[in-house]
Amino acid sequence: MQLGMIGLGRMGADMVRRLTKGAQQCIVYDVQAAAVDRLKQEGIAGASSLEDFVAQLTKPRAVWLMVPAAVVDATLDKLVPLLEPGDVVIDGGNSYYHDDIRRGQQLGARQLHYVDVGTSGGVAGRERGYCLMIGGEAEVVKRLEPIFSTLAPGTGTASATPGRTAGASTAEQGFLHCGPQGAGHFVKMVHNGIEYGLMAAYAEGLNVLRHADAGRQAREADAETSPLRRPELYQYDLNLADIAEVWRRGSVIGSWLLDLIAGSLAGDNELKGYAGRVSDSGEGRWTVAAAIDEGVPTPVLSAALFARFSSRGEADFANRVLSAMRHDFGGHAEKPAAPDGGKQ
Amino acid sequence: MQLGMIGLGRMGADMVRRLTKGAQQCIVYDVQAAAVDRLKQEGIAGASSLEDFVAQLTKPRAVWLMVPAAVVDATLDKLVPLLEPGDVVIDGGNSYYHDDIRRGQQLGARQLHYVDVGTSGGVAGRERGYCLMIGGEAEVVKRLEPIFSTLAPGTGTASATPGRTAGASTAEQGFLHCGPQGAGHFVKMVHNGIEYGLMAAYAEGLNVLRHADAGRQAREADAETSPLRRPELYQYDLNLADIAEVWRRGSVIGSWLLDLIAGSLAGDNELKGYAGRVSDSGEGRWTVAAAIDEGVPTPVLSAALFARFSSRGEADFANRVLSAMRHDFGGHAEKPAAPDGGKQ
Amino acid sequence: MQLGMIGLGRMGADMVRRLTKGAQQCIVYDVQAAAVDRLKQEGIAGASSLEDFVAQLTKPRAVWLMVPAAVVDATLDKLVPLLEPGDVVIDGGNSYYHDDIRRGQQLGARQLHYVDVGTSGGVAGRERGYCLMIGGEAEVVKRLEPIFSTLAPGTGTASATPGRTAGASTAEQGFLHCGPQGAGHFVKMVHNGIEYGLMAAYAEGLNVLRHADAGRQAREADAETSPLRRPELYQYDLNLADIAEVWRRGSVIGSWLLDLIAGSLAGDNELKGYAGRVSDSGEGRWTVAAAIDEGVPTPVLSAALFARFSSRGEADFANRVLSAMRHDFGGHAEKPAAPDGGKQ
Amino acid sequence: MQLGMIGLGRMGADMVRRLTKGAQQCIVYDVQAAAVDRLKQEGIAGASSLEDFVAQLTKPRAVWLMVPAAVVDATLDKLVPLLEPGDVVIDGGNSYYHDDIRRGQQLGARQLHYVDVGTSGGVAGRERGYCLMIGGEAEVVKRLEPIFSTLAPGTGTASATPGRTAGASTAEQGFLHCGPQGAGHFVKMVHNGIEYGLMAAYAEGLNVLRHADAGRQAREADAETSPLRRPELYQYDLNLADIAEVWRRGSVIGSWLLDLIAGSLAGDNELKGYAGRVSDSGEGRWTVAAAIDEGVPTPVLSAALFARFSSRGEADFANRVLSAMRHDFGGHAEKPAAPDGGKQ
Repeated sequence: MQLGMIGLGRMGADMVRRLTKGAQQCIVYDVQAAAVDRLKQEGIAGASSLEDFVAQLTKPRAVWLMVPAAVVDATLDKLVPLLEPGDVVIDGGNSYYHDDIRRGQQLGARQLHYVDVGTSGGVAGRERGYCLMIGGEAEVVKRLEPIFSTLAPGTGTASATPGRTAGASTAEQGFLHCGPQGAGHFVKMVHNGIEYGLMAAYAEGLNVLRHADAGRQAREADAETSPLRRPELYQYDLNLADIAEVWRRGSVIGSWLLDLIAGSLAGDNELKGYAGRVSDSGEGRWTVAAAIDEGVPTPVLSAALFARFSSRGEADFANRVLSAMRHDFGGHAEKPAAPDGGKQ
Repeated sequence: MQLGMIGLGRMGADMVRRLTKGAQQCIVYDVQAAAVDRLKQEGIAGASSLEDFVAQLTKPRAVWLMVPAAVVDATLDKLVPLLEPGDVVIDGGNSYYHDDIRRGQQLGARQLHYVDVGTSGGVAGRERGYCLMIGGEAEVVKRLEPIFSTLAPGTGTASATPGRTAGASTAEQGFLHCGPQGAGHFVKMVHNGIEYGLMAAYAEGLNVLRHADAGRQAREADAETSPLRRPELYQYDLNLADIAEVWRRGSVIGSWLLDLIAGSLAGDNELKGYAGRVSDSGEGRWTVAAAIDEGVPTPVLSAALFARFSSRGEADFANRVLSAMRHDFGGHAEKPAAPDGGKQ
Repeated sequence: MQLGMIGLGRMGADMVRRLTKGAQQCIVYDVQAAAVDRLKQEGIAGASSLEDFVAQLTKPRAVWLMVPAAVVDATLDKLVPLLEPGDVVIDGGNSYYHDDIRRGQQLGARQLHYVDVGTSGGVAGRERGYCLMIGGEAEVVKRLEPIFSTLAPGTGTASATPGRTAGASTAEQGFLHCGPQGAGHFVKMVHNGIEYGLMAAYAEGLNVLRHADAGRQAREADAETSPLRRPELYQYDLNLADIAEVWRRGSVIGSWLLDLIAGSLAGDNELKGYAGRVSDSGEGRWTVAAAIDEGVPTPVLSAALFARFSSRGEADFANRVLSAMRHDFGGHAEKPAAPDGGKQ
Repeated sequence: MQLGMIGLGRMGADMVRRLTKGAQQCIVYDVQAAAVDRLKQEGIAGASSLEDFVAQLTKPRAVWLMVPAAVVDATLDKLVPLLEPGDVVIDGGNSYYHDDIRRGQQLGARQLHYVDVGTSGGVAGRERGYCLMIGGEAEVVKRLEPIFSTLAPGTGTASATPGRTAGASTAEQGFLHCGPQGAGHFVKMVHNGIEYGLMAAYAEGLNVLRHADAGRQAREADAETSPLRRPELYQYDLNLADIAEVWRRGSVIGSWLLDLIAGSLAGDNELKGYAGRVSDSGEGRWTVAAAIDEGVPTPVLSAALFARFSSRGEADFANRVLSAMRHDFGGHAEKPAAPDGGKQ
């Protein structure tokens, strides 16, 4: 079927390519003409303006937005007046589901349909396919199935789950209508919250392995330093790249994230190319906020989130408060960092 | 090559079967004669006593222990006097690496070799192969490679890691000599620590999804209850089985654990067969203890561990202390559980 | 000066008593006539209706609301139309500061002043005085100082802080103008978030002390149970009531909360009167939500919050997910609770 | 009564002064002659060698060690051969209770008594008195009561706990015989574990207050940064020194630690004198390790401990692993720190 795509960044452009390869027809538009031209050179129909874009689409239109969450509303402000009752707008970016609910109501008042799609897959998605979590009206989602099934990885990309009735749901193909508007981004939000937790679990474990030689490091013996009681237990020099690799086969902790870690460590066992200032792009925060609203405990997901904040220096004032207290009740002076910075 | 296996429980028996299928020769022994008989009926050589077992093995002997960690020392007490210099004892169970270091020294004093092997794979290992993390002397580990390579999943069971030099390490086959004695169980310990964190991340996220209908639950409005400010944001009835399934294809959080979750939820979306008292078998505790010794922060791994303790009621007294304080400073009475127990 | 008080529950009535004792004039009103009558019998002026109440107050009026957060808006809906430009409304309850900002704007549009006061002190406040955290316009707050200084504990109730210039701020008397509207409840919110963390720290520590006899408890030796390696280190029967008491003098962890704990434990070392279902009334949640908005890590405050959720069974589904995974990868059956429930 | 004191650092010297002022007789010794001389000039009897020290003491001797935990064993090696059956050695430092149990057995074999005393009070203890948590044989502890009661703050330093029978225990004076050898340091260990949690609760809360102006900070709008959805809610410039001060009177979170915080902030609202590298001296680690042994959840105490590790850069490698994963699955580049470092 036909789909109009607005937003031709890394994700949007690759999705168009995957759709085109899968025999779907795409019309593309981007505020940057160069991005449109690149896809035109690949034989894909492009539009020179939003008006041109809308005009090229067959009614009822299906328009997919793949733009930064921060500009979705501004894009809708321009797009919506050009659309007609029955048209569908799909937000495939990383919107907060609160916004989906609001937008669904706003567009619905104009008899436009709004569908939110949480999209996972990252830069590998063009080849592997994208995992799609979808919210919106059932009939509208149904109508878009050719698009979803082309973007999704497809049934064969994972073994059948024992106990599931084959074909009972599109979930086995890699896309799922999760519920009404917002449900797609709600599920994607929690997906990312889980992702933070998984990533932190690997990162912490690898850090424990990296310091398995702690017994070899000279440690100062003073009242400010807790001595290592049995240094003979921490004498291992472990090869993290090989360990990540060995876990990829047969272990309980095998995963796609582990595959990526193995690749990173194969390139540099020390990961010297990174400073360790870890960004977060919202979904982890929203997951914990939702958990708090629901009264559901998420100690692991929140610990993973806060570790990212701390990696960016956001605990610094709290730490100064701690040092001040230690000074005041115990006369403890702060210890400077070791001259060589220690092993980190 | 030839291997003697002591301990024919689920894991030991399956490893013998995989080795035999892989053309290695096994001699088996267990304190329970019935366990030996079962494998004999499959055509595998069995021994009726430890003496008989040792006598059947070709020198230098290779003996693999696959017994509960709690009986390794007792087994060694009986086995070691029967062995001769140059023989190798392999502990493939879940021993604490502290014990490996001690045993390595004790056996070394008798010119026996000790190898520790952390084994991951669970009940699926017979077919998938076992991920093996190995500690011990390099020459001895080298000598046992035919055994390890037969037990391990093999190179083809995962795609090649970009950036790795093929064949540079046995890690690509699924087994790895990690370092001196104890290193195998150290790496396996951290592997399990990570496993706790991964499991908790999925479990917490699914719990958030499960309560996405919180806005539909009646919530009492009193000073003891925090009201849900925007119930319209929590009106989703999500199908967890389908969501776990859809994540298996193309998403960033795909993993073997997720495959298992999808299977469990396919059987029962509510998991009513479980009470939620979660055991821990030691490695998660040891991982956090090692992190503390090393001075490495593991907020996620420890939160996962403590959630298990709490699931077994171990926070109860602490919670009573909290309720007592609330009563005393604010006059707050404890609220009883809702008559229907709420949605859990 | 004169103050009208609406809401004569435990807190409101005691505040009126403290004000009256401090020579301030109070007019009181409550939807429950009996509550008004009780204070009338103590010689305090009461009103029989909201109209009567407003009529008795001298202009510009000062009206303090001490009602549940959930009914503040409904109360304002009835009260505001009766007021006149220049009148002041003070919300002394546990409102969310978001609501203060909104209400401040709404009342401001009618030339009414809105002041938010976070009030700490609990049932002991009538005697000890109340700690008041205040948000609103500076001149209006200034005008109300006689009320605040009477409610507050006063300078003499704590020793002077070394390094502070005496009299530089009303903080030394126990009340503080923190900033514009909402600032009072913002500071009170964080105050309570800290309170959750403090309470949890004591509760967890006492739980560790209570289980110092773990080496005496029989522990099953099976693959589902992590054995205690050195039971001889956990042979203590500690008297928690005495320990809480001894910490009250000279120790670094002395506090008012500890005083309360000592009292509770003096009454019952086991705290058998409590089930350990710990409520939370909102501020702890809001504090963590604010921290997430700000990007500030609060691992301790959130762990304390989530422990309360878990105490009410809200982790149950997550725990069932964990047990299901353990069953599926390792064949582990869930262990039932010990017949006697263990020591909790 | 008479007490010999070995170790005249800040703590030891001040304890001697308090004892002397309380009419107890002290003989002092330190490896640094200058430390002995200082006290001699205050009229206290000093010894020039360990032999001289022992000779000056009346039998049965009572010797208090106030030396760093790391040198207690070395000191005992020299002291013990000079002692005679019936003599008592008291370790008042920060020993691990495991060591107390071992030393108690070693000294017991020579008919010497060993008493462990956990001492809280810090630099303020000379004036306020010391909170003493004591382990050892009951008769021996009883014999030393004049010493303990002189060092302790005394009954009058806190109000009576409602519900306690006055005089039922020495706890009300500020010292307590907690149990057999090691019990004193066990209780002190948990005391410090709680202290870490309390300190972190205040520090995190103050950090949330400090960033209450987050809505005023320019925040970049890109895919790596989670935008602040409602900046109008974070427009407060809060005076932390005044807030800490106001909480000291009447609030639920009043404590000695808060008194110290108020003092620090009065000196410098920004705490610029500290870098925020927070040391830990062992007890926090041991508390969490004990909790793990006991199977008791301590999410708050461990989060506080790990925040200290992170403050010293010990999470850096874990953070680099996270950044590497983000790069590999999403193409995310690490964001550098803001030129001005942001507000921390």
